[in-house]
Amino acid sequence: MRIAIDVMGGDNAPDAILAGSLDAVDMFSPDDRLTLVGDEAVIKAGLAERNLSDDPRIEIEATSQVIAMDDSPVQAVREKENSSIVRMAKLGGRRHCGDRPSDVIISAGNTGACVAAAQMSMRRLSGIHRPGIAVTLPTFAGPVVVCDVGANPDPKPTHLHQYGHMAAVYAKKVIGVENPRVGLMSIGEEASKGNVMVKESDALMRDDPTLNYVGYIEGRGIFGREADVVVTEGFTGNVVLKLAESLATGIFKSIAMEVMNESPDIAPKVQHIIKQLYAKHDYHEYGGAPLLGANGNCLICHGSSKAITITNSIKNALEFVRLGINDSIVETVAAAEVNENATSGGA
Amino acid sequence: MRIAIDVMGGDNAPDAILAGSLDAVDMFSPDDRLTLVGDEAVIKAGLAERNLSDDPRIEIEATSQVIAMDDSPVQAVREKENSSIVRMAKLGGRRHCGDRPSDVIISAGNTGACVAAAQMSMRRLSGIHRPGIAVTLPTFAGPVVVCDVGANPDPKPTHLHQYGHMAAVYAKKVIGVENPRVGLMSIGEEASKGNVMVKESDALMRDDPTLNYVGYIEGRGIFGREADVVVTEGFTGNVVLKLAESLATGIFKSIAMEVMNESPDIAPKVQHIIKQLYAKHDYHEYGGAPLLGANGNCLICHGSSKAITITNSIKNALEFVRLGINDSIVETVAAAEVNENATSGGA
Repeated sequence: MRIAIDVMGGDNAPDAILAGSLDAVDMFSPDDRLTLVGDEAVIKAGLAERNLSDDPRIEIEATSQVIAMDDSPVQAVREKENSSIVRMAKLGGRRHCGDRPSDVIISAGNTGACVAAAQMSMRRLSGIHRPGIAVTLPTFAGPVVVCDVGANPDPKPTHLHQYGHMAAVYAKKVIGVENPRVGLMSIGEEASKGNVMVKESDALMRDDPTLNYVGYIEGRGIFGREADVVVTEGFTGNVVLKLAESLATGIFKSIAMEVMNESPDIAPKVQHIIKQLYAKHDYHEYGGAPLLGANGNCLICHGSSKAITITNSIKNALEFVRLGINDSIVETVAAAEVNENATSGGA
Repeated sequence: MRIAIDVMGGDNAPDAILAGSLDAVDMFSPDDRLTLVGDEAVIKAGLAERNLSDDPRIEIEATSQVIAMDDSPVQAVREKENSSIVRMAKLGGRRHCGDRPSDVIISAGNTGACVAAAQMSMRRLSGIHRPGIAVTLPTFAGPVVVCDVGANPDPKPTHLHQYGHMAAVYAKKVIGVENPRVGLMSIGEEASKGNVMVKESDALMRDDPTLNYVGYIEGRGIFGREADVVVTEGFTGNVVLKLAESLATGIFKSIAMEVMNESPDIAPKVQHIIKQLYAKHDYHEYGGAPLLGANGNCLICHGSSKAITITNSIKNALEFVRLGINDSIVETVAAAEVNENATSGGA
C-alpha cells in the first residue's frame, strides 16, 4: 500500500502530523510506502531524529508552498500548484498510463482545498455525481455515519440520494452494520416537513427499493441513533458536526469546573470519569473521514488533529483500501440506477 | 393585557398547559384577561378544581378540534377551522374594526400549524417579508438568540437580512445587550465559505451600516457566544436546536450513569451539580419563543412544555408586549431600508 500524507496541513502541523505519520510506520509491511509531502528540511530533520532517514519505506515529496487553513479553497488550489495539498492530491490521481503513485492521500489541512484538489486530480467514481465527506460520529448508542459534512454545500437531491448509498456501503464495511438504516436529516418526521431540496431527496430515496431508507431524522435523532447513516447537505452537516463537538467539550468542561468549585474533594474521581467518557466521543481516536465518491482514496482529518489522529487515520486508510469500499460503491450505485430505470420504465 | 392560550397543544396537554396557565393568573392585574382555548369540559373542570370558575379575568373559548403534533401543518390549519390553534390565532389577529381580541397568543402545539395559523390571522408587520422564530439559547457564556429555528425552511437572503434586524431588536430589549453583535451561521469564517443563499445574505448584511454585523459564525461559535444573535435559515436552525438539546441531555445522563456505576458514593453530590447545571440550560425555564415579524404577538412553546414553561411564557408574553418590540422592529427595518435605498441611490 502506498500512502501520501500532507505534512503541512492542520493546526498542529508539521510536528504532530510528522510524528503521527512516523508512528504508523511500525505497522507497515516491507512493501508499504509512506510519502511525506511538505517542507524537505523539516521532514528530513524529523526522520533523522528517529533514525528513519534510510528507511526504504519512506519517501519525501518536497514542496515549497502551504495552503493556509483560512485560504479560499478553490483559489488556493488554483494558485498554489506547489503546495503540499495540491501535490499530495496529484499523487492520489491516476497518471496518463493508468497507475496512481499513491493508493491513499491524507490531509488535516484546509478541508475545502483538500476536497477541491482531490476532485481535480482523482475525478469521480463511475456513476457518482458529487463526492461527500462521511464522518463517523460516536453516539451514546453506537456509531452513526453522517454524510455530507461539508464537501458540497449546495447539493441537488440526486447527490443526497447517492450519499445514502455511499455512506451505507461505508457503514456496512467499516462499522459492520449488516443492512444500515439510512435516514435523511430534516425538521420533522412527516414527509410534509423539510425544505424543498430535502422533500425532493426524500421522494427519490423512498422510491429506491435497494436502499434501507427509514425516512426523516430530526436533530435529536442523530444522537439517539435513529439511523445508522444520516444523509444531509454539506452545509447543515458541517454545522452539526462543529456544534456537537463544541457543545460536548463545553459541557464536560463546565461540569468539571463546577465540581471543582462545589466539591473539590470528589473532583479527581469525577475528572477521571469525564475523561473516559470524553475519550469515547473524541474524534482524534477515530482518524480521518473519507471523501466518498472520489475516484481514489482520500481521508480528511480534523484541523485540530494530533499525532494519534494521524496514526489512526493511516490505520483506517489501509483498512479502507483493503475493504474495497470504492468498488462496492460503484456496484451498489450501478445496481440502484438499473433498478431506478426499471421502475421508471415500468411506470 | 389579554392573553389567549392553546390549552390542547403540546405533549403534556391539556393538563400541564392548563395548570401552567392558571398558575400565571396570580401575577395578573385586575384588568388582565386570560382566554383558555380548548375543550370546554376539560377547562371548566380545571377551573372548578382551583376555585377559579368565577374569576372574571378568565374566559373560555370552546373548541371541538385538535391539531395533532404530527398533522401536516398547512393542511391541518385549512381543514380544522374549529381547532384550538386556528381559533387561538384568530383571537390574535385584528378584526375588521381594527381591534384584536387578544394581545398575545401562546401555543405548545404543532409548531408548523401555529406558524401557519398565526401568519394567516395576523399577517406581517409593515415592511417584513417573512416571520421567523427566535429562540434564546442558554450558553456557557450567556444567552444567544438564534433566528430562525423553523418557521421558514426555504428563506431568501432578504429574509435572513431582516431576521438579523428583528432578532437584534429582541436581544436588545429582552436580554439587554446594548448593540447586539449579529452573526450569520455558515461553515467557515471566510466570505468564500457557505452555500449560495448564505453568501448572498452575507453580502446584504455586510452592506448594511445599521446592523452590527460580525460575519460568519460556525457551528462551534454558537456555544462560544461569538455573536449575541445568530441568523440562520429555519432548516439548519431547527436541526441545531434539537441536536443541542438532545446532546446536552444525553451527556448529562451518561455522566450521571457512569458516576453511579463507578463511584456510587459520590453520585448524590455529582447528581446535584449536574441538576443545577442542567437547569441553567433548560428551555422550560425560558418559556416561549416569539414569532418575530408577525403583526401581533405569538409565542411558540416547546412541544414538551411543562406547567412551569407555560407560566414562564405568559410572564415573557406580558414583557414582550410591554417592551413594544414590534414597534421597534418596524422602525428599525424601515430605517435600514431607507439607508439601503440611500446607499443604492448614491452608488
